[in-house]
Amino acid sequence: MKKTTLGPQTLIYPMPACLIGADVDGKANFMTAAWCGIANSNPPMLTVGIQHHRYTYRGIKQNMVFSVNVPTESLVDQTDYCGIVSGSSDDKAATCKFTVFYGHLQNAPLIEQCPVNLECKVVHILNLGSHALLVGAIEETHVSPDCLTDGAPDARKIKPVIYGSGAEKCYFGLGEMLAPAFSTGKQLKKKG
Amino acid sequence: MKKTTLGPQTLIYPMPACLIGADVDGKANFMTAAWCGIANSNPPMLTVGIQHHRYTYRGIKQNMVFSVNVPTESLVDQTDYCGIVSGSSDDKAATCKFTVFYGHLQNAPLIEQCPVNLECKVVHILNLGSHALLVGAIEETHVSPDCLTDGAPDARKIKPVIYGSGAEKCYFGLGEMLAPAFSTGKQLKKKG
Repeated sequence: MKKTTLGPQTLIYPMPACLIGADVDGKANFMTAAWCGIANSNPPMLTVGIQHHRYTYRGIKQNMVFSVNVPTESLVDQTDYCGIVSGSSDDKAATCKFTVFYGHLQNAPLIEQCPVNLECKVVHILNLGSHALLVGAIEETHVSPDCLTDGAPDARKIKPVIYGSGAEKCYFGLGEMLAPAFSTGKQLKKKG
Repeated sequence: MKKTTLGPQTLIYPMPACLIGADVDGKANFMTAAWCGIANSNPPMLTVGIQHHRYTYRGIKQNMVFSVNVPTESLVDQTDYCGIVSGSSDDKAATCKFTVFYGHLQNAPLIEQCPVNLECKVVHILNLGSHALLVGAIEETHVSPDCLTDGAPDARKIKPVIYGSGAEKCYFGLGEMLAPAFSTGKQLKKKG
């Protein structure tokens, strides 16, 4: 089957829709980011790509810390809102009725309604062009107790928001479990 | 609601399960990676975190190019297999019956059965500890024609594999559409 070439495109599937938090001039602000992913296991680190002019980025540079908040399905409107409105013109946390709390890092604002919250310290910034790529060391993880199963975070209870780019820019929920990881592939191993 | 703290954890939801391709000593090899994400829009770039000892990484350093292949649900066993077996002991492309092709970069192997393939040139390598973080410039995108709608990639046709870490390490499918992006949040905007 011949493939169709589309030129360079930012098309990884799936992508998250996370809420990145920072105190800007001492006040909590949040922006939505799909350009993020885990970068390192030990120590735990992640990346977030943020446009240089973003209001949230100003706060990140002020404190060199930020948060990554994983929204749940019922927050899809708030997640979208934080991606289309700038904190320079609105108190987004108030509009979205977010309950903001602080953890270990003290000035990385966290959203109580989001089932997973990561507190991060900036360890690298790369200027890649349109975006600054932040590498953050994950310093603490907060999870809503009702999203834990036997003490571990449970994706089916978290119900994350998945960003789908392409033909229709929209948010999806998590679907059915397909197979167990580090297991289902073993059946392909050659015998003997 | 009081949150439970878990210490530093690599918990972004959702995470992809991509197949990273490289020619190692001239032969196509693929490994599974959940530690990846988009980094920059213009020019399009992505990140992949890879453990230093990985066989695939050897090939990436040889050619300074790699591919990111987005598997579809029916490839979940192959996707898992490429994460649990090393190319040093098996011809994974043969075992998985992948049809390998090459595009613009000539030595970044692509998997025809994967609906989306990105060809990448390494532009940065950061040693973060357990993993090397590769920043790749996306040079070309290949999409299976049957996964396009009006010429654009369609997540519902691509049916990507979603990696879920935590209580159960498993793969999920894409769920229902929740809401349109850059739109559903507008209803939260203050009137007047």
